[in-house]
Amino acid sequence: MTSSSGAPTGAWKPSGPGVSPLAVPLPDLPPLPGVRLGAVAAGIRYQGRNDLVMAEVSPGTSVAGVFTANKCPGAPIDWCRGALKGRKARLVVVNAGNANVFTGRAGRETCEATAEAAAALVGSPARQVFIASTGVIGEVLPHERLVAALPALHAGLRADGWEDAARGIMTTDTFPKASTRTALIGGETVRITGFAKGSGMIAPDMATMLCFVFTDAKVPAPLLQKLLKQGVDRSFNCTTVDSDTSTSDTVLLFATGETRHPRVPADGGPMLRDFARALDAVLMDLALMVVRDGEGAQKFVRIDVTGAANGRSAKRVAMAVANSPLVKTAIAGEDANWGRIVMAVGKAGEPADRDRLSVAVGGVWMARDGAVVPGYDEAPVVAHMKGREVEIAVDLGLGRGRATVWTCDLTHGYIDINGSYRS
Amino acid sequence: MTSSSGAPTGAWKPSGPGVSPLAVPLPDLPPLPGVRLGAVAAGIRYQGRNDLVMAEVSPGTSVAGVFTANKCPGAPIDWCRGALKGRKARLVVVNAGNANVFTGRAGRETCEATAEAAAALVGSPARQVFIASTGVIGEVLPHERLVAALPALHAGLRADGWEDAARGIMTTDTFPKASTRTALIGGETVRITGFAKGSGMIAPDMATMLCFVFTDAKVPAPLLQKLLKQGVDRSFNCTTVDSDTSTSDTVLLFATGETRHPRVPADGGPMLRDFARALDAVLMDLALMVVRDGEGAQKFVRIDVTGAANGRSAKRVAMAVANSPLVKTAIAGEDANWGRIVMAVGKAGEPADRDRLSVAVGGVWMARDGAVVPGYDEAPVVAHMKGREVEIAVDLGLGRGRATVWTCDLTHGYIDINGSYRS
Repeated sequence: MTSSSGAPTGAWKPSGPGVSPLAVPLPDLPPLPGVRLGAVAAGIRYQGRNDLVMAEVSPGTSVAGVFTANKCPGAPIDWCRGALKGRKARLVVVNAGNANVFTGRAGRETCEATAEAAAALVGSPARQVFIASTGVIGEVLPHERLVAALPALHAGLRADGWEDAARGIMTTDTFPKASTRTALIGGETVRITGFAKGSGMIAPDMATMLCFVFTDAKVPAPLLQKLLKQGVDRSFNCTTVDSDTSTSDTVLLFATGETRHPRVPADGGPMLRDFARALDAVLMDLALMVVRDGEGAQKFVRIDVTGAANGRSAKRVAMAVANSPLVKTAIAGEDANWGRIVMAVGKAGEPADRDRLSVAVGGVWMARDGAVVPGYDEAPVVAHMKGREVEIAVDLGLGRGRATVWTCDLTHGYIDINGSYRS
Repeated sequence: MTSSSGAPTGAWKPSGPGVSPLAVPLPDLPPLPGVRLGAVAAGIRYQGRNDLVMAEVSPGTSVAGVFTANKCPGAPIDWCRGALKGRKARLVVVNAGNANVFTGRAGRETCEATAEAAAALVGSPARQVFIASTGVIGEVLPHERLVAALPALHAGLRADGWEDAARGIMTTDTFPKASTRTALIGGETVRITGFAKGSGMIAPDMATMLCFVFTDAKVPAPLLQKLLKQGVDRSFNCTTVDSDTSTSDTVLLFATGETRHPRVPADGGPMLRDFARALDAVLMDLALMVVRDGEGAQKFVRIDVTGAANGRSAKRVAMAVANSPLVKTAIAGEDANWGRIVMAVGKAGEPADRDRLSVAVGGVWMARDGAVVPGYDEAPVVAHMKGREVEIAVDLGLGRGRATVWTCDLTHGYIDINGSYRS
């Protein structure tokens, strides 16, 4: 799957645990003051691999979180929303293989039992334990095994446990996803490191996208929440693999405050500008890695919309293009089918004037002001479509609204992954 | 593709002009007073098959129409919207192979030239000629060939030309689609006959769904429009193949008034009750035939939502399930994956309470009130999923809103059809 030959890239080999052709390598992940991580095999669903991850953060760590908009969220989402009210965190516990979604009272009890057992290990209130789960839904998560594995997991936490953690939360992901950046706050260097899992919607059963970000900066929780919300809106919320919103999406940001820097004012202000930039970069890195590991993805697609009535309208138009099965299958077929892009723009329901609409692929404007550009040069477009990265630009010719979103193509691989029986 | 053996139905053979396994036979289509039809090969895009269809209706025929909600409609849509203001029709001309969409001024000129040339053949105003086009978009429709073929086409119109017309508008459809019903108006029998084309979004380029319905009843245009709008809302607007809204969707209804029956009051009322029922039946037949010919479809899927806050909410939830790639691929894999159904209900954004939600497949309730039904009988569910017709029921447990929508599964066939290069 990592072939870089000139062979048709639309080919998908369903056999073997192939790595996405769009994969990026794991960066060096230095220790981050106030964070220790680890993973163990709790045998909850998978055999022969780690499936339970823990991160411990310093006492006093502030926390922020954003969660799925799905109206049927999993029990861990409910738990985290409640825990977030306390603004402080000491532990995060994540299991892969069972999402603990649609499990009724048993699901709530699993969260409570997990949080209490984990909290006892560090002497914190249970409400400072954050929980996330990913995997099959509708099956009761056997918390006995999970709870039994916690002491050994906690005993093995290490400052260099990042890769173990990033791998331990994978389900059908084909590569581990992590990113790190530094930022200056009042002249002091702090670090932001995050890891994530997600492959669009996850086979064999249910989609989840989980992301955990840590920093040694000292930022009060309300401000942290504001920065996280902004960053997620610009990154994860600008990506789509298949339009299906998971019941378990979770992004948590922990600030240990272990590195001393001048006190951050309550409104953030200029002192946090560089920190916000670095946080955005980490979130964007991770969000795009999830797209690159989209189920069956063979091509990474960027869609720029300009000239919309406003930014919100631009985003909706861009998402309509990104979610169109016809656009996505055309990209898989390496066909710069701008007619389907026009269709998708029109179906978005946003202000659009057919006779002002322009479409470019790979930087070549194929349609301008509502009609094909006579004699445009097809050769660079054809070459662009054969590559791994595809760029689509749409100008609506109406206003100054703009948006960029990212997606992947829709291939036989997606059908193979999601059309198979649950194991 | 028409195998009825017990072999796995998920299999898709991309080779050969297979007929959908969900196809239904063409019914007998008796002549309808005031309507003559025919088809010829104009050679606009296809070779060796008819691609230009005409129907002539009696002078004084009233007409109604509904069109795509896409903001980038084709030139024929603009033409028909204008022509509809006159409330009268004499001809409808349809070409297959080129949709005349996103063609700028040339597209408008093609419509005008076609309407004028056709009108001259019957001595009517050009505004009584209705035009529809389906096929590739963004290519100028060469109206010289189209206009040149009109006289011979008109000369060959026949009262029994229904099958020719139904076949002549096909693009990637795998079977012709028509339906007929009778109804009583004031004790007199009238007939309603319609034909349609559509295969979800149509390969190799662009989706179109076209439908033409004729009756010998005498119904004033405003009333006809009201009945058509209601009927389309209950039929075509309750179906989806792949969520992509065409730029060319058109449903036209012509009432020749050739059969004498008591005068219909302006508000319709009880006298039109049976007619409305029959019209709804024809529209529903045709809409479900389009779903049955959905690109790559191997299974026909009905989704019933009950217990929603209101009818509109029920429809949105049902459509979220019907459009979910994860639900559709699970059905292709014959997996009664109710977890994905829960996800799709939750992502609809409509009022939903996870702990009141129930899901059934094939009549077996697998989840009740927010949790799996312990020990439910899986055998009949497995058997149901192996069949050609799949029934999903969702009860939200909130109110009395209900809706039913129809769709098909998402298979390798869809990717094959839409991921290939334009020819």
